[in-house]
Amino acid sequence: MLVKGATPRPAAAAIEGLLKDLARDLADDQLITDPDLMAPYARDWSGAEPLMPDVVVRARRTEDVQAVLRAAQDNGVPVTPRGLGTGKSGGALPLFGGVVLSMERMRMVHEVRADDMLLVADAGAVTAQVMAAAESEGLFYPPDPNSLDICSIGGNVACNAGGPRALKYGVTKHYVLGLEVVLANGRRVELGKRTVKHVTGYDLAALIVGSEGTLGVITQVTLRLVPQPRAVHTALVAFASARTASVALTGVLTAGVVPRTLELLDRHALDAVRAKTPGRFPPDAGAVIILETDGPTDERAFEDLERAASVCLELGALDVQVAQDAVQREKIWAPRRLLSETLKESAEAKISEDVVVPRSHLPELLEAVERIGETHGVRVASYGHAGDGNLHVNVLFDKDQRAQADRAVQDLLQTTIGLGGTISGEHGIGLLKRDFLPWEQAAPVLAVQRHIKAALDPLNLLNPGKILPLGGAAS
Amino acid sequence: MLVKGATPRPAAAAIEGLLKDLARDLADDQLITDPDLMAPYARDWSGAEPLMPDVVVRARRTEDVQAVLRAAQDNGVPVTPRGLGTGKSGGALPLFGGVVLSMERMRMVHEVRADDMLLVADAGAVTAQVMAAAESEGLFYPPDPNSLDICSIGGNVACNAGGPRALKYGVTKHYVLGLEVVLANGRRVELGKRTVKHVTGYDLAALIVGSEGTLGVITQVTLRLVPQPRAVHTALVAFASARTASVALTGVLTAGVVPRTLELLDRHALDAVRAKTPGRFPPDAGAVIILETDGPTDERAFEDLERAASVCLELGALDVQVAQDAVQREKIWAPRRLLSETLKESAEAKISEDVVVPRSHLPELLEAVERIGETHGVRVASYGHAGDGNLHVNVLFDKDQRAQADRAVQDLLQTTIGLGGTISGEHGIGLLKRDFLPWEQAAPVLAVQRHIKAALDPLNLLNPGKILPLGGAAS
Repeated sequence: MLVKGATPRPAAAAIEGLLKDLARDLADDQLITDPDLMAPYARDWSGAEPLMPDVVVRARRTEDVQAVLRAAQDNGVPVTPRGLGTGKSGGALPLFGGVVLSMERMRMVHEVRADDMLLVADAGAVTAQVMAAAESEGLFYPPDPNSLDICSIGGNVACNAGGPRALKYGVTKHYVLGLEVVLANGRRVELGKRTVKHVTGYDLAALIVGSEGTLGVITQVTLRLVPQPRAVHTALVAFASARTASVALTGVLTAGVVPRTLELLDRHALDAVRAKTPGRFPPDAGAVIILETDGPTDERAFEDLERAASVCLELGALDVQVAQDAVQREKIWAPRRLLSETLKESAEAKISEDVVVPRSHLPELLEAVERIGETHGVRVASYGHAGDGNLHVNVLFDKDQRAQADRAVQDLLQTTIGLGGTISGEHGIGLLKRDFLPWEQAAPVLAVQRHIKAALDPLNLLNPGKILPLGGAAS
Repeated sequence: MLVKGATPRPAAAAIEGLLKDLARDLADDQLITDPDLMAPYARDWSGAEPLMPDVVVRARRTEDVQAVLRAAQDNGVPVTPRGLGTGKSGGALPLFGGVVLSMERMRMVHEVRADDMLLVADAGAVTAQVMAAAESEGLFYPPDPNSLDICSIGGNVACNAGGPRALKYGVTKHYVLGLEVVLANGRRVELGKRTVKHVTGYDLAALIVGSEGTLGVITQVTLRLVPQPRAVHTALVAFASARTASVALTGVLTAGVVPRTLELLDRHALDAVRAKTPGRFPPDAGAVIILETDGPTDERAFEDLERAASVCLELGALDVQVAQDAVQREKIWAPRRLLSETLKESAEAKISEDVVVPRSHLPELLEAVERIGETHGVRVASYGHAGDGNLHVNVLFDKDQRAQADRAVQDLLQTTIGLGGTISGEHGIGLLKRDFLPWEQAAPVLAVQRHIKAALDPLNLLNPGKILPLGGAAS
């Protein structure tokens, strides 16, 4: 399916020409062509089959990226930009070979301004490092994807990453003020501004956010920061069912409290981590919510936690455990952090989805997830950012159940779309969701995207074969 | 200057063909061709010279907009979308004649969802009506352009409107979840989602925000809402100079307090309103800040006001007057609201600019503004959203001083750009700033915008001649 109508891999002569051009501008140790050394660049965190590049380039500065894109254009070789390789949808895999352009060596935080409340970093800077730099000036960069210790800020921008705290603070796009981008023709452009307000022409920075390296290569980011919350409080709230939990979390928000997280673990997710965290959850809990509030003072954060917890209890919560210190707080979060790995270990194979529905449809989505597991004979465990309507639904199966698992996923995606939702909340479309995009988006919407792609990358060399299904007409 | 390289107005035969086509789909009272009745549609709030359309169409539903765009395409007639005509940069004026497509009759709020915290409204709905609808469900739509009682939400989206509260809450683009848009070819598309999180292809809704009707016609908007703050507190803080005030407001923000407004009035702005509001300002005040905080409880809003006021006093404020009730609050805001009109009355002519600099450069911008007035022999009064670095700089002059005034404006724009700022914070580029855009944006950035414009509107019929300077090469 993935290679239907595929552009062939570049001819050997094209790669030779490219390497010759690159040798002029780049140091030897920036170019990798040894298959063994390239192997890690053929994978990401999506679970997709490896896809080998013809060459890996490790850029050290923006000029290197420009050189790569010029050489790629001159030789007709595709370029797949890559942050730190933690993507979950195959966006960084070189579908048609060519260059994997790695940003791993461009990882400086150049500037943190307390007065302008902004930060400038290279695309390859690790997200946690960006957060730490903000905190060193009493500021806060909120988006917190699960992989924050090992993912890149440029990758976060390319995929518009989210995380638990998106509930209160929004996603990556809400923090992008400006971007330095290298276009397909090798030109460097500065998009956006160092100010929150600017209406000067089209919002090209916003267009690049979430475009997964198909419209340009992000080399530097300018991020808006907010004051660092001085206090955080956390509670584990147990419910009889995920349905009750999902009704309660809407109750919390409509009561006017916006916690920084309302993370849900459903019954199957709980079952998976119970063995690793004995006694952590009440035995009658069929779902839990991790409720976390923050604020400028301890009183405010705690007051919000109390209000939110009261609403939950009024709406049927079985139990509320409030963390009294950092150790207890970590104990509440540990099962959530262990989930992805634990679920993976619990089955021969796992497909992790990233669906979102309008919050009011969460109960229906949760019911559908139960039904889907039963219908297709696979285990389905769900957890995630339920406050935002965003669930990571994990289909767990034996290797000989691949067909059932695929049908379960397709059922899930169609159900989500039927509820007015979307097939990707924060992981992007990349390669793995590409052929499902037309289920969600009408032909004229896809056509506009094809027109924009053709306008910015007329030779279709920037991460070709991602996001937009192959072979579609442009209008 | 404005008509250099201009597309000629459509030929009489083209207009005839258009009217014939429109007569099939629209009622008589939706079409206006009488010049007297069309005259109001030849103007906006920019102060630009009137520009007459050939026909005004008042759409009642999305299908009408589709019919207009199809007829326009078939007959080669330009279409200028118009909200309620309060734009400040000439964006709604039909530079090349053709159709003015007014949204004034599409003004329903269709849906307010407390659980999903969103609202759906027609593009022509008045912003204040949208706010009231949100409040009826205990929710809040924060962006508050000065014209909120008479401007349209679609116009706000088209120009990415801001307002005083943008300091805490961000601008219109931070609240757009989804848009219904009619493309140049007459096709209706739904962009975005009813969820905050979605990374499914390019963020076309974000591209449309701020595109001033040049890429599509916005017919319906889906807006994110937040819980309504239950309490607001307001204070007037006096300073010896605008410079001191601008240092203090950065101090407030770096202390971790984010008020909902930090509005500045400089000495010249104060002088202009003193006569209308006697005794309102301390006689030694050379600038004032309107400091306003909000929150879920009275205590929190007041605590934040106290903290911010303390920081101001530490940093040299002369005096803080705290409003004790709604009447006093209104007394603090009245001079700010009167300013635009009062300044207009105070001179034969006025040009109002909308520049933004990174907050740290505000002192330099304020000094430059003083210098610019002296250098060019005109009065310059500044006020606005200083917390965001966004100043409305008003050049006041006699009618025979037009040349000096124009030079003062150009000096201001160049100074702003030199400080890393932008020539439009919230009014857009439209017609009046169009030829200055290349001062701020490099040729490759303009080229990308031209490519996108050509991709979405290949016949250049959607609000032609706006934003992008005429005659520029596309790469």
